[in-house]
Amino acid sequence: MGEKRVTFKDIADHTGFSKTTISRYFNKPDYLTPENRQKISMALKELHYKENKVAQILARGETNFIGLIVPHMFMSFYSHLLDRFLHTYDHFDYKFLVFSGGADPVSERKYIRELLSYQIEGLVILSHMIPSEELASYDIPVVAIEREDRAISSVNTDNYTGGVMATELLIRNQCDQLIYVCTDSRQEVPSYDRYRGFLDTCQKNGIAQDAFFRDSIFSYQMMYQFSEHALNCICNSHDGKKKGIFCSNDVTANIMLNLLFRKYGCLPDDFRIIGFDDSPTAQESVLPLSSIRQQIDLIVAEAMRILDSQIRARKDDPSCILQPKHSLIEPQLIIRQTTSG
Amino acid sequence: MGEKRVTFKDIADHTGFSKTTISRYFNKPDYLTPENRQKISMALKELHYKENKVAQILARGETNFIGLIVPHMFMSFYSHLLDRFLHTYDHFDYKFLVFSGGADPVSERKYIRELLSYQIEGLVILSHMIPSEELASYDIPVVAIEREDRAISSVNTDNYTGGVMATELLIRNQCDQLIYVCTDSRQEVPSYDRYRGFLDTCQKNGIAQDAFFRDSIFSYQMMYQFSEHALNCICNSHDGKKKGIFCSNDVTANIMLNLLFRKYGCLPDDFRIIGFDDSPTAQESVLPLSSIRQQIDLIVAEAMRILDSQIRARKDDPSCILQPKHSLIEPQLIIRQTTSG
Repeated sequence: MGEKRVTFKDIADHTGFSKTTISRYFNKPDYLTPENRQKISMALKELHYKENKVAQILARGETNFIGLIVPHMFMSFYSHLLDRFLHTYDHFDYKFLVFSGGADPVSERKYIRELLSYQIEGLVILSHMIPSEELASYDIPVVAIEREDRAISSVNTDNYTGGVMATELLIRNQCDQLIYVCTDSRQEVPSYDRYRGFLDTCQKNGIAQDAFFRDSIFSYQMMYQFSEHALNCICNSHDGKKKGIFCSNDVTANIMLNLLFRKYGCLPDDFRIIGFDDSPTAQESVLPLSSIRQQIDLIVAEAMRILDSQIRARKDDPSCILQPKHSLIEPQLIIRQTTSG
Repeated sequence: MGEKRVTFKDIADHTGFSKTTISRYFNKPDYLTPENRQKISMALKELHYKENKVAQILARGETNFIGLIVPHMFMSFYSHLLDRFLHTYDHFDYKFLVFSGGADPVSERKYIRELLSYQIEGLVILSHMIPSEELASYDIPVVAIEREDRAISSVNTDNYTGGVMATELLIRNQCDQLIYVCTDSRQEVPSYDRYRGFLDTCQKNGIAQDAFFRDSIFSYQMMYQFSEHALNCICNSHDGKKKGIFCSNDVTANIMLNLLFRKYGCLPDDFRIIGFDDSPTAQESVLPLSSIRQQIDLIVAEAMRILDSQIRARKDDPSCILQPKHSLIEPQLIIRQTTSG
C-alpha cells in the first residue's frame, strides 16, 4: 500500500526476460529452467513484488473460494460445524466466504449471486431457505448438510438409525411412555427420519408414543416457549408413567432438563431425556445430556471430499455434469447422565 | 459454466462500441450517456453475460473483502460476535473471508498472508495469537475486539465499569466474601480491567476478596477442570461466608452453577454468581445467569464504522497513515436469577 504496484513489465525490464516468460513463471513454472526461475525469484525480492492472488485468479481461473451459508448460530451445532469447515483450510487450502442467512431467502439469493460473481468454486449450504432445485441450477458443486437435498449432493447423519438408537435406549431405561419433541415437521428434511426411526421402534416394541412438532423456530426464545409448552402437556397427559423424552436437538433437551431441575432440584425418576446432535450444549447442561452424536468431523471430511472431487472434475472438463452424491454417516449413541446405560 | 465466457470484445462486436467504451460501462458508467448504457445493458442480456467481480476487482482495485479471524467457537460469545459481523453484509456489502485460528500462530500467519494476497481491504481480529505490532505492520485497516490492541484499532467493552457493576451487585446481595474467577491473566488484554474494577470496588467497600486465574485455556474441558478446581477451593476456604462469585465469562459461571446445582439441587443461599458477556450461555443455563452484557450489536457497528472509514480513507489516498482508534462501549448489568436485584 502506498507504493506503486510492481507489474510484469517491471519484472521483465529488470530481468531482461519477456513478459510472456514472467507470466509463465507464475502460471506454468515448469516451462522455465531452474536457473531462470531462480533469476526471476531474485528479481521479485529486489523489486519488493507483492503476490496478488487476484491476478492469478484471472490467469488461472482458480479462486479457491468456497461459499458457506449457515442459517443462524443460536444452535451450537451450527457454530461447531462452521468451525470444523473453517479448519479444513489446513488440509484443502480453500478459503471460506461465509454468510449467515437466517430466515430471509431474498437476502440469501442476493448473497449467492454475489458469491457466484466472485467465482466461488463450490458452495456448502446449511440453511433451509432455498429449494435444492434452485441451488442446482447455479451449476456449481454444492453440498448440503441436514437439509432438503433432492437435487444437490449432501452428507447427512443416518437419522433413521439415530432415531432407533435413542428410542431403544429409552425403552431399556424402562420408560413406558415415549415422547418425540421436534422443532421441524417438514417431511423432506433428513432429520424427519429420526421420527420414522422413533415410530417404528415404538411400534415394534409395543410402547405408547406421543409427539410434539413445531415449525419455523428462528430464535432461542421461540424454542424455549415451545419446549415449555410441550413439557407442560407431557406432565399433564402422562402422569404416573415413566416418560422417555427424545428431543430432535440438544437445545430443546437442555431446556426441558432445566425446567425439570428448577421444579424438582433434580431429574425425577419418572423422566429420562435424550437429545440429538451431541452439540456442545449437551456437555454444558446441568446434567450432561445423553445424545445421538452427529460425527461432525466425518461429516465435514466427507462433504469436503465430495466438493473437492467435483471442483477438480470441473477443472478437467468445464462441461462435465455434476451428479448429486448422497452420503450417510453413522450416528453414535452417547450415554451421559440423563439416562442410564 | 460449460459455456464460452462472454468477453468485452464480444460485447463490443455485438454493440458496435469500442472495447474501451465497454470497459467504461463497467468501471466508469458516468462517462457514458444513458442511451449508450441502455444499449450495452440490453446487449449483456442478449449475450447471457455473467458478471465477473474478479475482473472488476482488477479494474477498480476493490475487493470488498474483509478477513475475520476467530480464536475458537466453544465460547458462544465468539459465535455470536461472528454472526453479527456476517449480518453487516446487508448494510456494508463487505464479504467476510473467515478463519478459525485456535492456538496456532504459524497457521494464523500463513492465513493472513493468504488474505493479503487476495487483496482484503480490512481485517477483524478476535484471536490472541499475533502481537498487535505485527498486525499493524501489514499496513491495512485492522480492528480488534477484546484482545491486546496497542498498535491497532479496537472496540472493547468498558471492562473496568463492567467489573465495578458486577462487584457492586454482589455487595448489594450482602455477599461478604467476593471471588473473581478468570480464564486469562495477561495484563495487556482489555478484559484484565474487569479485575481492576473488581479490586477497586472491594477495597472501596472494605470487602474481603480472593481471585483465581488460569491461562491458556483452549477447550471447554480445560475450562471445566479449572472451574471445578476453583469452586472446590472456594468451598473449602470460605465456608460460613456468603460468597459472591464474579466469573470473567458466562461459560465459567455456567459450570460453577451446574456444579452447585448437582450437589445441592439449587443455588444455595450462601452463593451468588454473576458472569460476563451475556452470551447465549447465560440464558440457557439451569438458572438464567446474571451477567454483564457486552453490547455486541454496538461493538460490531462501531468496529465496522472504524474499518469502513479507514478503508475509504485508503481508497482516497493510498499513502494515508492508519491511526489506531480505540472505542469503548458501555456494558449493561443484566440481573437474572443467580443474584437478586
